[in-house]
This record gives sequence, structure tokens and C-alpha cells, in this order.
Amino acid sequence: MPHEFFFQVKSVAEVTEEILSFSPLEPVEEDLLRARGRFLAEDLISPEDLPSFSRATMDGYAVRAKDTFGARENEPVILNLAGEILMGQTPERPLQPGEAVRIATGGMLPEGADAVVMVEYTEEIGPLVEIRRPVAPGENVIQKGEDIRAGEIVFPRGTRLTTGRLGVLSGLGLVRVKVHRRPRVGIISTGDELVPPEESPPPGKIRDINSYTLAAGVEEAGGEVTLYGLIPDEEETLFRAVERAFQENDVVLISGGSSVGTRDFTLKAISSLPHAEILAHGVAVRPGKPTILARAEGKAIFGLPGQVASALLVFYLFVRPLLLHLQGARREELALPRLRARVTRNLPSAQGREDYYRVRLREKEGTLWAEPIFRRSGLISSMAEADGLLKIPERSEGLYEGEEADVYLLP
Amino acid sequence: MPHEFFFQVKSVAEVTEEILSFSPLEPVEEDLLRARGRFLAEDLISPEDLPSFSRATMDGYAVRAKDTFGARENEPVILNLAGEILMGQTPERPLQPGEAVRIATGGMLPEGADAVVMVEYTEEIGPLVEIRRPVAPGENVIQKGEDIRAGEIVFPRGTRLTTGRLGVLSGLGLVRVKVHRRPRVGIISTGDELVPPEESPPPGKIRDINSYTLAAGVEEAGGEVTLYGLIPDEEETLFRAVERAFQENDVVLISGGSSVGTRDFTLKAISSLPHAEILAHGVAVRPGKPTILARAEGKAIFGLPGQVASALLVFYLFVRPLLLHLQGARREELALPRLRARVTRNLPSAQGREDYYRVRLREKEGTLWAEPIFRRSGLISSMAEADGLLKIPERSEGLYEGEEADVYLLP
Repeated sequence: MPHEFFFQVKSVAEVTEEILSFSPLEPVEEDLLRARGRFLAEDLISPEDLPSFSRATMDGYAVRAKDTFGARENEPVILNLAGEILMGQTPERPLQPGEAVRIATGGMLPEGADAVVMVEYTEEIGPLVEIRRPVAPGENVIQKGEDIRAGEIVFPRGTRLTTGRLGVLSGLGLVRVKVHRRPRVGIISTGDELVPPEESPPPGKIRDINSYTLAAGVEEAGGEVTLYGLIPDEEETLFRAVERAFQENDVVLISGGSSVGTRDFTLKAISSLPHAEILAHGVAVRPGKPTILARAEGKAIFGLPGQVASALLVFYLFVRPLLLHLQGARREELALPRLRARVTRNLPSAQGREDYYRVRLREKEGTLWAEPIFRRSGLISSMAEADGLLKIPERSEGLYEGEEADVYLLP
Repeated sequence: MPHEFFFQVKSVAEVTEEILSFSPLEPVEEDLLRARGRFLAEDLISPEDLPSFSRATMDGYAVRAKDTFGARENEPVILNLAGEILMGQTPERPLQPGEAVRIATGGMLPEGADAVVMVEYTEEIGPLVEIRRPVAPGENVIQKGEDIRAGEIVFPRGTRLTTGRLGVLSGLGLVRVKVHRRPRVGIISTGDELVPPEESPPPGKIRDINSYTLAAGVEEAGGEVTLYGLIPDEEETLFRAVERAFQENDVVLISGGSSVGTRDFTLKAISSLPHAEILAHGVAVRPGKPTILARAEGKAIFGLPGQVASALLVFYLFVRPLLLHLQGARREELALPRLRARVTRNLPSAQGREDYYRVRLREKEGTLWAEPIFRRSGLISSMAEADGLLKIPERSEGLYEGEEADVYLLP
């Protein structure tokens, strides 16, 4: 029976560096409404002041602040009421000394006015307004350009477009933005024992789980999936499938059958691609050791473990970061969201590799606990129960019950 | 100047109960590849055992465990090699006592075999196999149905279909699933001072920010958006727009201009819908007090604050939970993901209402800190900088620097 060897085992940190050496995809212009979750391909510079005029932030009266100095509850200042500024209207004339003009929240301050007195501290008496409290210059006003200035970098390149940021861009009229293209990802599953999920497997065979699982993961990471189906453990067929997926995509994921033979074919197929360079063959991580990463003509090709839970860990550790990196994400945004939790029991680990445990998270009296899901390797149901992946670093020999560790939240 | 009053102010908890009183939308059958992030509309029952046959979890030899009892490094047990089972193949005949058959990870155990000896502890010598370690029954084997049993509830109704769960379903051949329909959401912005984001606003006017911001939020929450554009502060026009959006959607969001007059129109327009019932008019939350929630013919209509950051808070507090609830999510999945963090400074609050502060999160020496973003009301740029929303509960009068609080993570 053939034994497997890995000729270029790398640490997780080393593979991560290789991931970062790929070039982000070219920029495309996208409608703002289709840009959520994407990353800016250029510094975004404000074309104008926001707001474009000084606005009231309260209902009340626009005034010259110094006209109100000395006003008190029992000794109000009396100003001349000089009309009203409705929402969306331009003031008809500048405010003269000794005048006040009625204004609603959001209304445009007239020239000469520099503050707004809240309606609560006023009373209209015919053509006059009593002001019972003084205001400082700028009080209850947003100045022109106070939010964002024309020419200012609103968001630097690499910023993820969240809901709140899309709001800011629409306020600036930036309804089309330059973001990086979404990566196209081809997915191949190999293994003679597999049948497509739609089919009923005859005895000895099982359904392909990796294609759908990886497809869902790629989609969540912003990629566009093409499934190349099941390729039998046959060298020529695999070569042709890999070659085709390589031509049609930016990234190719080949998840190997569990047999060593298939993995040999996978390595050979990847190596035969034009100018292929094997960046890693074996990663010091458990699970997920039999991982291959290669580059050919700037594209990334992964050989992933056949066991689906291992394939998914490697996906979150390397493939998802690569897909985000190709979309222009900043380095600190590549990993899954992380939090700290205490482990509910001792967890062994070996020095010299990163270990990941699938965990459930439970809060108990304000403390977050990570409970490892112990299942025998190969059971897929555990994959569905995990809230996160608990990491035991390379240099650690394990964790004691109650110790804190990083947990990466599964999307 | 008109003053505003709210005739049915409710607490956040009360409004949340009203949200839960809406009925989830009808189930639809969806392809697994399109079901990510959706919620199961029925208990999902496994049609079959998984795995459907007992499988090896290691490369090695399938044996009857009791034949190996007593085997040691220096006193191996000798078994007859009875061929090989390849991946995806059916064993040709049952395993007889005294026999071993070569098997690869994932291979189907022959009848009679109940364990696998790892290849490391064996040696083939012609037609014989030396076994140098005993195995217990079941060792290195996943039993038929050990992962999931036929007839078992795999995932109960309301389960969110994550990447891992989609994998499990594809393994069971459940490539179409019943999930709740996505809610259709109509968005209306009102206010004479607004122009569409594509246009350049004349003096005194500003761009509509709420439509795009709310649209992005609805999309993130799984809804399907229709924008009804900008409606001027004019009763008849608003009535017609609200009526049309109501007919064409499951949920209508009307974000009011900042003026009290517009909000009056909004309340009237909502009240005029068939069998309209005002569930809340005013919510004890800051920001976000001027919120309206109504039900008409089982549909939800929201009147949201005009200021976009307030509208977005109300969106995350009530609208997003409703959209998830309509899609069949369980109660514990309705809120944004939550974590605990210490505040970097004293934060005042008033008893009798929930206060929310936009915060940035920073980790410092293993402790998570929430730093409030203090910006004057009406500045939209703060919306883009927040990582989360820090909550000060109704009964609290505020937090001291260093105290822990709940922070809801913004998507």
C-alpha cells in the first residue's frame, strides 16, 4: 500500500504569505446597489462638501449668536421674526442683525446666521420672537463640509463596502464605484467512490459532499462558482478537467478523493499546468495536512483534502482569505471574525503545527465558553453543529480547561 | 411651530413582541445551491442512513476484531490476505474467520468484518498479513447510520442553512429543500428637501441617503427590494405611493423627512391602509423614538426616522429581525451577533429607554474595548466608522468607564 509523503510542508503563516503574493483582480465599475460586501479598488475622494450648505440640526430659529448673548428665562432677548425657511428651500435674503428666522431641522441657514435656538426656548409674539437662552456660534448647526470635505479621502482603497458606507457614498452622489472583480472559481471533485448529490449511491459509493459545500463557501466569500462535477480517479480525465477549469477561472479547487492515488494524480495534473509552481505540498495544520497550493499564470490552484470537514477548514484558512485578497480586501479583513473564549476541557495539541477544533459557543454568567465537538473523523454531522473553529497555535502543546483561545466564527 | 407627540410609545421589548406576532411567509422549494442563509420551513428528516454502509476511516486491513486479540509487536497474529477492496467497490464476499482484506480509507467493510487495523501495524508477507496490534470491535470504522439515521430529524424547522449544513444535506441527497419565501420590501423616502442620489442637489436640498442605505440592509437580511423613490411632502402623493408599495410587498419602509408635517402625513397614510392597526407610535429608544409600526392585512409597515443613522438603528433593532422572522428564523437568531466589551469612557443614559451608541471595537492585551464614536447628530460619516452598536438597557442610568456592555456587531 503506497505511503504518502509531502515534499514541501509549510506552516500556516508561510502559506498565508504565499496567498498574499497573488495579485488582486482588475477593477470594475459597479452600481452602488450591487457593491455591498465588495472592496474599493481606489481611494474614494469626495467630489463635494457634505453637507453642501450649513444646516439646522434642531427645529427653532436661525440667529446671529451674538444677538442672543445675555438672554435669560426672565430677561428674554427680543428679535424681529424675518419669515420662515422651509425644508429644501433657499433663504430669500441674508439675516440682518436683530433678526431671527423660523427654521426646521435640516433647513438651510441664511447668510449671516451662525446658530439655531431650539424652539423650546422661544416664543413668537406677533412679528417678534422672544429668545430665553443664549446660543454659542455654531450651536445646533452642521457647517458646510463639516461631515466630509471636497477633496478628502472618504474611504481608502481596500475598504469593504458595508451598509453604512454605501449610505455615505449615496449621500455624496457616488452611485457607481470602482471595486475589484469577483473571482471566478472552478470546483472539481475527484474519487471513484463518489456519485453526484442528486443520485442514489449504489453500495460502496457515497454522494459527493465537497462540491456543494465548497460552492456555498465560495459564494459567501463573494466568488462566482462553476461546478465541474465528478472526475473519476483516472489520470487523463483529471488532467483535462483541471486544464479546462484552469482556463475558465481565476481559482481552481480540486478536492481529492481519500485515496493516496488520487492525490498523486491531482499533484501531477496541477504540475502539468503552464508554468505551474507548487507553493505548498502539505501544510502543518490539523486537520488539513494534505493540502496543495500552486500558482500558474497568476492563477491559484488548490488541492484540498477529500474529507469534507478538513476541506472546509482549509477553505476557511486559505481559500476564503485568497478570494477576499483577490477582491482587494485588506490583510486584517482576510480571516474570519475572531473572538476569545475559554475551553470547556483540556485539549491536546502537538508542537509544530496549528490545531483546529470545531466548537460550540455558550455564554454562561457573562463568560464565553467554547465546547469542542468531539466526533470521529469522517462524520459530517459535526460540521453542521459548529459555531466556530478554535485555534491552538503552532508553539502550544495544548490548552487546559478554562484557558482562553482564539475562536474564528463560521459564517 | 407644531410639536410632535407620540400616542402609543412602546418599549423595545414590546415592539419586539409585536414583530414576533407576524406570520412567517409561505414555504417554497429551493435548490440547495440557492438556499444558503435561508431558514428551513419544515423539520428535515433523513431519508436514509449516513453512511449507507460501514466504512474504513484509515488505510489498512479489515478484520474480525477478535482474530487480532493478543497480537503484539513481537508476537504478531498471522491472517490470510483475502484480496483488496477498492474505493467505491462492493466487497466480493464476506470475510471469513482468520482472514484480512486490504482496504483504503472510505472503503466498504465486507460482511463479517468489524474493525480495521491501521497499515502501520501490519506487514504483508506473500498471501499472509502480520497484525502487530489488536483492534477493538468498531475501531477505525464508521458504522452504517452512525452519522445520521434514516428517519432522524437532521435539522429542525427554523434552522439556518449554513455552508456546513448545506454540505450535510447534499450528503443525504436532499438537493431541494423547503425554506420560507424571501420577503419583498418596498422602500419609500419622503421629504421635499431630497433629490435622488444620482442628481446634484440645488442649494437647500440634499441627496436621499435612506433609500440606498435601507436597500443594502434589506438585501443583507435576505429581502428583495423595490425602491419607490422620493415622494414629496404632499398628502395625496404619499397616500398613493404607500398604497402601491403596500399592494406589491410584504413589508413597506417609509423613512420620513425630518419635518413633523411629513411624519403626520406618514401616520395618516399608514392608517388609511385597509384594516390598518398601529402597533407602535414612538419607541422608547435613542436614537429612533419617532418610529411607527403598523400591520395591515398581515403586512408590516414601518415609519422610520428621517435621519439616516437613526433609521439604520431602527432597521437593525426591528426591521431586520422582522425580515428574518418572516423567513422562519428562530427567535434567538433575530438579533445581530452580540459580544461583550468594556466601554472606554463614561456613557450617560436615561432610565426608561434603551440607548444605543455607535462604537469602534479595539482589542488591547486580550480585552475587547468599545470606543463610542461621538459625532453630532446628523453627521453621516460616523455611520461608516462603527463596528457595532453598544446597548445601554432600559433600567440603567449609564455605564462607567471599564464597565462591560453588550455590543451588536454591524454586518
